[in-house]
Amino acid sequence: MRNLKKGITAPLGFLANGICCGIKEKSYDLALIYTKPKATAACLYTTNKLKGAPLVVTKEHLQKSKKRASAIIINSGNANTGNGLKGIEDAKVMAATTASCLNLKKEEVLVASTGIIGVPLPVDKIKEGIKVLSKELSEEGGVKAALAIMTTDTLPKECSLSFKIEERVVTVGGMSKGAGMIHPKLATTLTFITTDISINYQLLKEALKSSADKTLNLITIDGDTSPNDMVVILANGLAGNKRITKKDQDFYKLQDTLREVLLNLALMIVKDGEGATKLIQIQMVNAKSASQAKKVAFAVANSPLVKTAFFGEDLNWGRIISAIGNSQTNLDINKVAIYLGENLLVKDGAKAFSSLDKLKELLKEKEIYLKIDLHQGKEELKVWTTDLSLEYVKINSNYRT
Amino acid sequence: MRNLKKGITAPLGFLANGICCGIKEKSYDLALIYTKPKATAACLYTTNKLKGAPLVVTKEHLQKSKKRASAIIINSGNANTGNGLKGIEDAKVMAATTASCLNLKKEEVLVASTGIIGVPLPVDKIKEGIKVLSKELSEEGGVKAALAIMTTDTLPKECSLSFKIEERVVTVGGMSKGAGMIHPKLATTLTFITTDISINYQLLKEALKSSADKTLNLITIDGDTSPNDMVVILANGLAGNKRITKKDQDFYKLQDTLREVLLNLALMIVKDGEGATKLIQIQMVNAKSASQAKKVAFAVANSPLVKTAFFGEDLNWGRIISAIGNSQTNLDINKVAIYLGENLLVKDGAKAFSSLDKLKELLKEKEIYLKIDLHQGKEELKVWTTDLSLEYVKINSNYRT
Repeated sequence: MRNLKKGITAPLGFLANGICCGIKEKSYDLALIYTKPKATAACLYTTNKLKGAPLVVTKEHLQKSKKRASAIIINSGNANTGNGLKGIEDAKVMAATTASCLNLKKEEVLVASTGIIGVPLPVDKIKEGIKVLSKELSEEGGVKAALAIMTTDTLPKECSLSFKIEERVVTVGGMSKGAGMIHPKLATTLTFITTDISINYQLLKEALKSSADKTLNLITIDGDTSPNDMVVILANGLAGNKRITKKDQDFYKLQDTLREVLLNLALMIVKDGEGATKLIQIQMVNAKSASQAKKVAFAVANSPLVKTAFFGEDLNWGRIISAIGNSQTNLDINKVAIYLGENLLVKDGAKAFSSLDKLKELLKEKEIYLKIDLHQGKEELKVWTTDLSLEYVKINSNYRT
Repeated sequence: MRNLKKGITAPLGFLANGICCGIKEKSYDLALIYTKPKATAACLYTTNKLKGAPLVVTKEHLQKSKKRASAIIINSGNANTGNGLKGIEDAKVMAATTASCLNLKKEEVLVASTGIIGVPLPVDKIKEGIKVLSKELSEEGGVKAALAIMTTDTLPKECSLSFKIEERVVTVGGMSKGAGMIHPKLATTLTFITTDISINYQLLKEALKSSADKTLNLITIDGDTSPNDMVVILANGLAGNKRITKKDQDFYKLQDTLREVLLNLALMIVKDGEGATKLIQIQMVNAKSASQAKKVAFAVANSPLVKTAFFGEDLNWGRIISAIGNSQTNLDINKVAIYLGENLLVKDGAKAFSSLDKLKELLKEKEIYLKIDLHQGKEELKVWTTDLSLEYVKINSNYRT
């Protein structure tokens, strides 16, 4: 069941809000998610060795609260990363202020930030903002929260889906922010998922991890992994289903739905990638291993020469096979086939098409479908990326908040 | 001794020429290097698993000729890569035609190509070209050859240096082509070195490898390694020095000179990188290992976010430390210091400067000097890269020959 009207406030019991507290000049920059009752919470963190202060505080709070949380406070416009001990203090102030406004323990509040690195947080503005924010939480506030976590995103990214466990309707909602420094590894970009399902912590974490690995962890915009990447899921149990405590049918229903929500969000992130004019899907087939499939796919997905060629709508298959040759994996390049849509471009490592006419039409599309057949095993995988446009350089050479 | 007038024709006994044979519309596209007497030849090849046909033929010829060569024929405008067996045949025709014009055995001729991948070589034009080319070889022809190997280069890249062994003057000359798909690994971009020194094959190869590792292998423009990368050195012995057969003082003199020639060429390549507005030197100090130093340096050098920030003359040190955190090496990010010139930007992983004024001036310079002190060992290394500009995207989204 699709339920596109609402994102994180679609599941029962979740309220949210977003405002402009003054970190940015005019746009929303502070979001709050709240659930009554308290939820089971699981989180995935960035693999960047530089970690934003909010991640450190969130991890500490989840440990103290035994994986239970009631609220997430999030700001955009400032990553609160590279700010030393002051950064940790400021992230704690964000949590403590939220806790005090909502009458919670501070370790029940998680914290996230996104934006420029290395600029001190304007913590007084945020404190005032939290007071305003917490007074107007609502079931319609999801979209405001989704707007408030945006950085260079041009659109808010929300999704929710429902399914049934016996007669109970269970809903999963989510929101993400893009749009640059995107190459999730084990963790992912900022994504917040809410659900009213009843489930234990271990299984919730496992469903989140396996779903992220097949969705958010398979997209890249520029090969840079943010130090603030985080995915959080809150499950408050209000759907009233029999609590999931083992990998039964209900668990897999949740996992499937979660994967679909995350895939929707992941594709929204790529489509809205900085300067992106095209979504490029790279489907790997017949790889020796999942690791080989991933290395080859990302070697192609992150090659600036492949990406600029797609921006120019130029069928430069030579750059694609050269990028495959550069992937750090043992492979026989003479077995490789490449397809654009259903059309064979390369067979046995060499050119395999005669007319460009039909292919040129496909290159003009907004969505490009590449298939790479390695002919050396049975593993499959899809990754998604964007082209590299003039606009990407403009955005990133001018970006200061 | 600096001898900048000539490149590959600076050493005794080397002749060269360059012409336009019609692969490109108007610019030089065919180069020939010739030495009488026959030279000892060593070669480094790309690590890309896709290998251009000329590399396959050059390798075969060097094996058959027992590492001896008299000529190198090189074309630009077409890489002769991804052309299957026809590509190999065509590369052999280039060698055979050259051999016949110069009265050589075909395995004494080496072949190189650079340009677009996957387009058949216009071999008839090249055959006609070789006939013209071989008739007007001269000591002044080095610059014409340097012009003829250019792809998106805006300037020819030549260098030569001399030193003395007892009373004998020994000269090393070289030419390179840039300017995109540059991230040499073990091999390098197209570079041709000539010298009149007398030396055995093993030592010549070793001097070339060790020099390339400290120069050409430490530059990157876009992180893409070309399938046609090759460095060739020819040593014809005409300087008349006592043949070098062990690692004595003379060997190290050659190695030092060779390294300086390659460094000059490497820096010319980076400065003339596609769309480059700045040369960025990244000096690593106090790394745990050479491998760690290299991984961190290249993580910074290849980050599109770091490169676009330098293009925008924006002091986004957060992107630098985030790129360091993303390098695939175990490191303690809290020990890292970053300098711009002599000015401390980051200490113990956090911001360490107060005023931007002086730093802003440094960012406007054409040459940017970054120093990254990992504070976790004693290894040092320098790598060189460019910024990422609007022009890079324009060049690479429009590039068809």
